Amino acid sequence: MGRRRDATAEIAGKENEESLSTEQIFESKEVPSWKNQLTFRAFVVSAVLAFFFSFIVMKLNLTTGIIPSLNVAAGLLGFFFVKTWTKVLEKTGLLRQPFTRQENTVIQTCVVAASGIAFSGGFGSYMFGMSETIASQAGDGNTPVNVKNPSLGWMIGFLFVVSFVGLFSVVPLRKIMIIEHKLIYPSGTATAHLINSFHTPQGAKLVKKQVSALFKTFGFSFFWAFFQWFFTAGDDCGFSAFPTFGLKAYAHKFYFDFSATYVGVGMICPYIVNVSLLAGAILSWGIMWPLIEAKKGDWFSAKLSPSSLHGLQGYKVFISIAVILGDGLLHFSVVLFKTIRGICAKRTRKDSSAILPDAVTSSPDDSSYISYDDQRRTELFLKDQIPNTYAFIGYVILAIISIITVPHIFPPLKWYHVLVTYFIAPVMAFCNSYGCGLTDWSLASSYGKLAIFIFGAWIGMNSGGVLAGLASCGVMMSIVSTASDLMQDFKTGYLTLASPRSMFISQVIGTAMGCVIAPCVFWIFYKAFPLGVDGSDYPAPYATVYRGIALLGVEGVSSLPKNCLTLCLAFFVGAFFLSGAREAAKHYKLRVYYYMPSVMAMAIPFYLGSYFAIDMCLGSLILFIWEKSNKKHADAFAPAVASGMICGDGIWSLPASILALAKVKPPICMKFLSRSTNAKVDGFLSG
Amino acid sequence: MGRRRDATAEIAGKENEESLSTEQIFESKEVPSWKNQLTFRAFVVSAVLAFFFSFIVMKLNLTTGIIPSLNVAAGLLGFFFVKTWTKVLEKTGLLRQPFTRQENTVIQTCVVAASGIAFSGGFGSYMFGMSETIASQAGDGNTPVNVKNPSLGWMIGFLFVVSFVGLFSVVPLRKIMIIEHKLIYPSGTATAHLINSFHTPQGAKLVKKQVSALFKTFGFSFFWAFFQWFFTAGDDCGFSAFPTFGLKAYAHKFYFDFSATYVGVGMICPYIVNVSLLAGAILSWGIMWPLIEAKKGDWFSAKLSPSSLHGLQGYKVFISIAVILGDGLLHFSVVLFKTIRGICAKRTRKDSSAILPDAVTSSPDDSSYISYDDQRRTELFLKDQIPNTYAFIGYVILAIISIITVPHIFPPLKWYHVLVTYFIAPVMAFCNSYGCGLTDWSLASSYGKLAIFIFGAWIGMNSGGVLAGLASCGVMMSIVSTASDLMQDFKTGYLTLASPRSMFISQVIGTAMGCVIAPCVFWIFYKAFPLGVDGSDYPAPYATVYRGIALLGVEGVSSLPKNCLTLCLAFFVGAFFLSGAREAAKHYKLRVYYYMPSVMAMAIPFYLGSYFAIDMCLGSLILFIWEKSNKKHADAFAPAVASGMICGDGIWSLPASILALAKVKPPICMKFLSRSTNAKVDGFLSG
Repeated sequence: MGRRRDATAEIAGKENEESLSTEQIFESKEVPSWKNQLTFRAFVVSAVLAFFFSFIVMKLNLTTGIIPSLNVAAGLLGFFFVKTWTKVLEKTGLLRQPFTRQENTVIQTCVVAASGIAFSGGFGSYMFGMSETIASQAGDGNTPVNVKNPSLGWMIGFLFVVSFVGLFSVVPLRKIMIIEHKLIYPSGTATAHLINSFHTPQGAKLVKKQVSALFKTFGFSFFWAFFQWFFTAGDDCGFSAFPTFGLKAYAHKFYFDFSATYVGVGMICPYIVNVSLLAGAILSWGIMWPLIEAKKGDWFSAKLSPSSLHGLQGYKVFISIAVILGDGLLHFSVVLFKTIRGICAKRTRKDSSAILPDAVTSSPDDSSYISYDDQRRTELFLKDQIPNTYAFIGYVILAIISIITVPHIFPPLKWYHVLVTYFIAPVMAFCNSYGCGLTDWSLASSYGKLAIFIFGAWIGMNSGGVLAGLASCGVMMSIVSTASDLMQDFKTGYLTLASPRSMFISQVIGTAMGCVIAPCVFWIFYKAFPLGVDGSDYPAPYATVYRGIALLGVEGVSSLPKNCLTLCLAFFVGAFFLSGAREAAKHYKLRVYYYMPSVMAMAIPFYLGSYFAIDMCLGSLILFIWEKSNKKHADAFAPAVASGMICGDGIWSLPASILALAKVKPPICMKFLSRSTNAKVDGFLSG
Repeated sequence: MGRRRDATAEIAGKENEESLSTEQIFESKEVPSWKNQLTFRAFVVSAVLAFFFSFIVMKLNLTTGIIPSLNVAAGLLGFFFVKTWTKVLEKTGLLRQPFTRQENTVIQTCVVAASGIAFSGGFGSYMFGMSETIASQAGDGNTPVNVKNPSLGWMIGFLFVVSFVGLFSVVPLRKIMIIEHKLIYPSGTATAHLINSFHTPQGAKLVKKQVSALFKTFGFSFFWAFFQWFFTAGDDCGFSAFPTFGLKAYAHKFYFDFSATYVGVGMICPYIVNVSLLAGAILSWGIMWPLIEAKKGDWFSAKLSPSSLHGLQGYKVFISIAVILGDGLLHFSVVLFKTIRGICAKRTRKDSSAILPDAVTSSPDDSSYISYDDQRRTELFLKDQIPNTYAFIGYVILAIISIITVPHIFPPLKWYHVLVTYFIAPVMAFCNSYGCGLTDWSLASSYGKLAIFIFGAWIGMNSGGVLAGLASCGVMMSIVSTASDLMQDFKTGYLTLASPRSMFISQVIGTAMGCVIAPCVFWIFYKAFPLGVDGSDYPAPYATVYRGIALLGVEGVSSLPKNCLTLCLAFFVGAFFLSGAREAAKHYKLRVYYYMPSVMAMAIPFYLGSYFAIDMCLGSLILFIWEKSNKKHADAFAPAVASGMICGDGIWSLPASILALAKVKPPICMKFLSRSTNAKVDGFLSG
């Protein structure tokens, strides 16, 4: 209407259109009520995809043990399935409800929840680590009390009991992480951009350009990942083993690994996070680990394998967890304090909505101006509330069921052990989803290892500490992994205006699906192939590793390398106070706050190495140069470009997994040798 | 003046300024007369640089035998030397003459001419191949008549006699190649862009942006080359050995070698040239060579080394030369025919300037519109003429001197042999400078090898055919290599408005410098180190190769592999007629002309392989996409970007050479192994 009144109006209109934000563009599209977002077709598609992904994840669990993130693939395939379906129905005139981005998000969430269980269920790690097959290979501990062979019944039961608890712990965190702390959740954000792009209404020029930028980088990133694949025949081959800064730096994990994902993540994350990551990497891999390694033979035996927790690896794992817990505990306390204060304030004011503006404006990163998009998203995100009290009650009820049931499944684990787990778990879940929101890394398995260690040491070998440790690992990992995965989804939901209530229900349904599908898929493999046999097709490498940790755990604290506990304590306290100082600086709006690194972000590379920190800093650098040269352009396109990079790389993991399952191996190894080694190899190859 | 009259005028002025062409920008700067372009300081700087570069080239000659192009480095270092000099003088108030881009070009030309002799003098190839040291290693032919040990006297004499001849053969070609055929000479063009950038007057906005684009890509390309260096410890290591399309394609030389130079060259060259290169590459390396290789054991012995001219390598070398000669001969005939017609027309019209518009408009690629830049450049290029008659007389006189002198230096070479060489040489010079103008590749050494073969076969072993072959190689290479090198410089001169006369004189002085400097530098090495000893620091690998070819040559045509001569003849005739058809299509302005590949361009990859064709096609692709998305932007910036890429990579060869001379070796080898080989290597390395 009125688009041709006169030339000036036309131009003005165009300019206006150019500057429309995403949600202004989408305003013409009605957001369905939360009940209408949950369609039957969505769950059919989800079930199909969930089975498909579970199969992929399970096979990878049992072969290499390295599982890619399938969030993006879930969003994309969900779109194509339902889109085709609706297109067909549209042609036959039977379409009653159009396909919306909210529905798309619901599918994605459901699939992630379901296929996540194939990972967090530990079929390639803790769960299978309990079996006799693994126990017989892992030295000591092959005693009846420490062994439990897989069986469909107890596995489904166990998963049902523990998997839903995580869901309820996520609910109260949701608002804190996404609205108050405005955390990024890079993968979730990228998926949301992708989903928004699929559903963008016609006609908006700038958005069209953004969508085109997203798909271009998507394609580039996909083909880059595809290209990289060809050069990865063997360990330490390919671009991901590229010693960009030399072989010595590579040995200390300083290199650029050419991962489009993390460059994209770096472009989405704030500068301070990326700088903190790099600072943490330099502190740990550049200074601390080499110093500790110099104590080899003194602090720990020189004969240990590099991956033994008795040696350097032990320092890495436990110190990084100590720092994360220190920082996490502080944030948790701050949130707890604020919540209690909020509840008190609410009681006096009796005004339940008053908490919203307070929560929003108390965020550290906000400017006084809240964009239309943020406003609308926050509004919808808070519309269909799930009251915290319900979440709390749900958590307690499920925890009680779990406390009663789990000791029946694993006799060595007593009710008070499970109770303690459920007391610690929310803090860990908080830490993990906070760290994941900052840096896109979920360290669920680290928390799981900590649980193995704690409960193994507490219970001891003779009382079945190995089995109990592995079981508590399961409880912990379910909660912690759910907390980060589903928070990513909530971020996607936030950015696509999906109702939190519909997402919660979708997650519940997805989790239920997963609890059945995952054990069944495992059962197929278990019955069909000899699993866990070294050198076979399905060696399940991590099952041995997890049992190994459990065997270490039952020896207790004394098994830790020298000074490890002291260092952990020191770092824990240090992290707590540094983080406290940062929070104080934020609260009193001191300038120094903007230059204080995030302690959580610093801790992540402690364990993982610095390669991804370098990727992310490169992303920052690209963004920085882009912003310098054209701020407006960068602001408009950087999120789309970054999302394209993350999603393209993410989707590649699907064909890559399928190639791996079909035993198609890459043909070439791109190897990096020092000059002297190269001379030797050349001599060897020439005869 | 009047830059603030009113707003409209201001904007109009700005737009005008935006669209100014390079020569319009430079119009404020007076072009010095040709005599003033030749300054004393220029030749002092040239002499210093010539010595420096000769030293580098000589050492590379004697170590690896692979010589990088130093044109760009000459231009750049010339600029910095004289600029510093003039800056200092300016401060002391003693500066009489400002530093102009013409003077810069003069320096560059002089240095290229001088240091070119260090290569074309063959101190690492044919000249040293005559020595007893090499003769004693190369099997037969170690007879007094076939050996001539280096000595300062005859080397300087020989170089003086043969090196200037090339100069005179270049003069008449100059106008044909640059004005009539409008050939690109990518390196020369890039150097000119760089020199223009250094001397751009202040204030022009678009040009400033172009200069900034040039220096950005220059820096990028330099650091990319630097980065690549680290991974080249050993043969077949690094990005230049990257099997982009798989190992099998790599074995057939189909790969992208990550060379910024050739991507840049591809961006400057017309699409049809790049497509022709790729077509030629597919025809030869994709079809013909595999077919011929299948005849192994039948057409040629299966036991030969892959580099033996008795085998596949023989087909490659001789067929590619046959095609080039076929195409070259046709173009040469066309030019000869046109020239004769022109002279006749001139005689009847008695109007010497009438030839210019005819020459310009007869060019195939011109549109009826000639840009201001082209007009001004052509005008200045044709102002200070060197009449063709003078060039012809000069050539004849020098040839006569050469015919008298050379047989005294090399007794086996009789006067008629030299005479024949001087008859063939101009055709070869034409071919080489034409091919170089199209694709940036000089195949001087191929022509040299052809001369070795022809004269070796003609004279025979017992009459000293080995020595005579090597000597005739020297005569041929001097002319042919000069023809392409100096034509590149003339292109630079054309684009920087340097007078052809001043350039010619600079080349004469440079050549004279080179004839003294190069043998002296060689003499230093010869006296100080044991040259040509296998395994030593200075193995001079190509000296043995060249003598090997000469030894093959004396066996005559019968030594060629089966059907090689037939194939050569067929390809020669085919090339001649295909090229003729293309010229006819051009003459009659048929549409099909635009789709006919350039035969010369097709022949270049016959011998070299297709990797650079792929680089260049990538350059075309980048340009194509750029033009599709923003034609105006691409037209304005593509030449600058391409020049930056070529120059940055080119300059890196300087530090790379210095590193090689200082024996600093790269630390890492990036190796590409097939999966099975990799498994073997991993086994070897792990124990």
